[in-house]
Amino acid sequence: MAKPKKTPRPTAQTPKGFRDYFGTDVTDRAEMLQKIAGVYHRYGFDALESSAVETVEALGKFLPDVDRPNEGVFAWQEEDGDWLALRYDMTAPLARVYAQHRNDLPNPYRRYTMGPVWRNEKPGPGRFRQFYQCDADTVGTASMAADAEICAMLSDTLEAVGIQSEDYVIRINNRKVLNGVMEVAGLAGDDKEAERGIVLRAIDKLDRLGPDGVRALLGEGRKDESGDYTKGAGLGEAEADIVMGFMDAKRDTGPDTVARLSELVQGSDIGAKGVAELEEIAALLDAAGYGPDRIVIDPSVVRGLGYYTGPVYEAELTFDVQNEKGQTVQFGSVAGGGRYDDLVKRFTGQEVPATGVSIGVDRLLAALRATNRIGTTEQGPVVVTVMDRDRMADYQRLVALLREADLDPDNPSLGKIRAEVFLGNPRNFGNQLKYADKRNSPVAIIAGDDEWERGVVQIKDLVLGAELAQTATQEEWKERPQQEEVAECDMVEAVRRLLQKHAEHRQVMDKLNQ
Amino acid sequence: MAKPKKTPRPTAQTPKGFRDYFGTDVTDRAEMLQKIAGVYHRYGFDALESSAVETVEALGKFLPDVDRPNEGVFAWQEEDGDWLALRYDMTAPLARVYAQHRNDLPNPYRRYTMGPVWRNEKPGPGRFRQFYQCDADTVGTASMAADAEICAMLSDTLEAVGIQSEDYVIRINNRKVLNGVMEVAGLAGDDKEAERGIVLRAIDKLDRLGPDGVRALLGEGRKDESGDYTKGAGLGEAEADIVMGFMDAKRDTGPDTVARLSELVQGSDIGAKGVAELEEIAALLDAAGYGPDRIVIDPSVVRGLGYYTGPVYEAELTFDVQNEKGQTVQFGSVAGGGRYDDLVKRFTGQEVPATGVSIGVDRLLAALRATNRIGTTEQGPVVVTVMDRDRMADYQRLVALLREADLDPDNPSLGKIRAEVFLGNPRNFGNQLKYADKRNSPVAIIAGDDEWERGVVQIKDLVLGAELAQTATQEEWKERPQQEEVAECDMVEAVRRLLQKHAEHRQVMDKLNQ
Repeated sequence: MAKPKKTPRPTAQTPKGFRDYFGTDVTDRAEMLQKIAGVYHRYGFDALESSAVETVEALGKFLPDVDRPNEGVFAWQEEDGDWLALRYDMTAPLARVYAQHRNDLPNPYRRYTMGPVWRNEKPGPGRFRQFYQCDADTVGTASMAADAEICAMLSDTLEAVGIQSEDYVIRINNRKVLNGVMEVAGLAGDDKEAERGIVLRAIDKLDRLGPDGVRALLGEGRKDESGDYTKGAGLGEAEADIVMGFMDAKRDTGPDTVARLSELVQGSDIGAKGVAELEEIAALLDAAGYGPDRIVIDPSVVRGLGYYTGPVYEAELTFDVQNEKGQTVQFGSVAGGGRYDDLVKRFTGQEVPATGVSIGVDRLLAALRATNRIGTTEQGPVVVTVMDRDRMADYQRLVALLREADLDPDNPSLGKIRAEVFLGNPRNFGNQLKYADKRNSPVAIIAGDDEWERGVVQIKDLVLGAELAQTATQEEWKERPQQEEVAECDMVEAVRRLLQKHAEHRQVMDKLNQ
Repeated sequence: MAKPKKTPRPTAQTPKGFRDYFGTDVTDRAEMLQKIAGVYHRYGFDALESSAVETVEALGKFLPDVDRPNEGVFAWQEEDGDWLALRYDMTAPLARVYAQHRNDLPNPYRRYTMGPVWRNEKPGPGRFRQFYQCDADTVGTASMAADAEICAMLSDTLEAVGIQSEDYVIRINNRKVLNGVMEVAGLAGDDKEAERGIVLRAIDKLDRLGPDGVRALLGEGRKDESGDYTKGAGLGEAEADIVMGFMDAKRDTGPDTVARLSELVQGSDIGAKGVAELEEIAALLDAAGYGPDRIVIDPSVVRGLGYYTGPVYEAELTFDVQNEKGQTVQFGSVAGGGRYDDLVKRFTGQEVPATGVSIGVDRLLAALRATNRIGTTEQGPVVVTVMDRDRMADYQRLVALLREADLDPDNPSLGKIRAEVFLGNPRNFGNQLKYADKRNSPVAIIAGDDEWERGVVQIKDLVLGAELAQTATQEEWKERPQQEEVAECDMVEAVRRLLQKHAEHRQVMDKLNQ
């Protein structure tokens, strides 16, 4: 008889470019986003969660980033012929939401949103096809006060998640100034759009390519290390000088920078308008208490996206970290945004001015974790071990006692004791302690026949045990008690004491590591 | 000259069956999920966020619900030929994650997860193609203590979000008991699988069809109101009696119910095993303090899904609400789950026992909101109005003062004052007050030339204004001051006083409405 044909087993694997998040990866992010949402809310921004799926028509088929026109979205066709797609950012859905609901929304409309977006790009190291974005935008006002407010809010946000004012800077620039510079350099007019795009992207790469690389792109073009050739904007010497001067226009004080920019755009109306907008934003921020120690005018910020029409801004973390090559580098950009006036027009024909910021959630979280500003105190649950399978009801009773108990009766807001009973095969007790170790448990509760008879439990300090195992001499090991016997009615209090001792110890260690 | 052809404007519309969530729809849900996560965490469950996208192969192509085999997933083909899809629930991804990462995960593995899932179903009223699920599962243990623990945790969860113990009940049953009943009724054996499925789904519809309808489905079949005929399981009178007796086996106490079930499955080993499991769970829950006032054995609970293999459980809210037809009905089920042993086997060939619960997030949130248990105190921001566009920096300064101020200096955990400046066109002051009204603002700050000169601001109580407009006689209107003039340096304190007065007033009203 022929063997029945087996269906091959499916592979248990995330699709390429996707990943799973476990434990504190999830909760640290949630904690950070909650703090951010708190600031946004305080500024009068309302939450919005649009559907993850949009019609391709509403979304626009491709990313607006002109640098990568061929990268797209995850899309599929419905039975009725419509094409749907996963959102690739939060701005395109905002435009759709605003156009759809504008009669019911307050005007201006301030909204924040946080959630995953999807990009159908080639995945690479550290480059995923699903990641979080956290955006705040104000739609329906051309007032520079809206841009200033978002920069102030970004500053408050960074400080709310634990970044001190000396560890970040928010840089502001204005696209109109850049357009003025281009006009002066002879790149005005519809027929020069391609050249303007090349200049924009060249400036955006200053960090990576250095002045010489940018200069090459402003002129004939540039061959990179791999031999690939990128066509340049074709500017002459004098014109390229003007653009290079723009990037170099930052002076020690805001007013000095503004004065230098004014010189550079002389004769261009749009340039003068941009300079005036920068001045206005700086004055508003100053009045609200956000001085140049936090927010500065910096002409080298241009932001790659083509759709910005006025102020652009970027938040950079200035502390050092090790990069993947082991080099010490500034952490760099974690958020950016700017003013855009055309997105809603696609739907309504009306120009609706808007400005907004997007926080790179994964990068900001990585920064907080790299510097021990979040996730430093996570600890596993107390594990109630099982010596006798038939007494499971008693073990459940113990674990329920722990879970009902406040960590600190004087401060109930700290929550209750985290605890679980061992649910695996209890036969091998060593496995239970290995399990507790994998769970990062601070404390194990042990009770067998002898203990039940005498109405006591053993409380084992797993943190002390782990530390002694690493550092202690045999003498110390013997002297310091890792295990304590207490009456059952004293268990909660004894566990509480141990957990508090651990918490104090951790706080000291965290301080040392920061 | 021919007009240039215009690209037609895209329609600003969520795709059919999708929706956007605004403001408190988002924040109330987040608040509820945070409370739930707190309980799960306390029970030793770890967070997991798997990717929203899975390979179709890993996911299994269709919903496991045998009642709806043709409903599927949103799927698309990659350039390399692979098919990807959006997850349709949280259980299939858990199976994939566990199979993929099992060597790194603790064993047993307790995890919780919350997020959207997507169903490619025909949308209908109140039936969306993207919705939230919140699941907790324990993978890798056959112990009934795992099932008992999840039921206890579900009870704690409902109480943590504000449902009192008299307002819900968790019902437990066991599929093995049902299988025993089927065996006794002559439906054992592989060749009777279709009939067993019919019986399962018939029982699950008891609420909707009543005993007569179920009885018809156990026998020859049933014609519904629309004339559609559903084939029955073909049981004879005596056999159908046994099944009907099973659904009716609930007695006043748990032990009595168990005794009745024992009688019904007499002669069936699997049935006896199921009864023993129910007894064990009941004993464990009793020891942990969860008595029949919260969790009961109820044979009418079967859960439609085919994959359950042991205990099944369901949480029902017992208070009355008005349904869409205006009838008063019990709110009904908000969560359910059970034990399933086959899901991971698809990947590894190994049988890995698991049990878990899924909370219907939207339904539970609707229940909390319908009974004023959440979202009753949301209020808009203080709005600083703009009388003089040129003084925007001063208005920004005022709004910054408010935002930096604690709502209650004695209790900083309450957060700071929510405030915004009006960013629309300030010319028409009436529009600013209309805007404040749309924002549900409690207080407006007003300052024009006269006020700036004298160093004062006007503080307008918008809540009082709104209430007076609804209820007051003209006399009262005049007597109660809606507007107060204070020195600028006293603004924060005056706003704080007003907000506290409003908060106390709201608390009284919320209590009355509950």
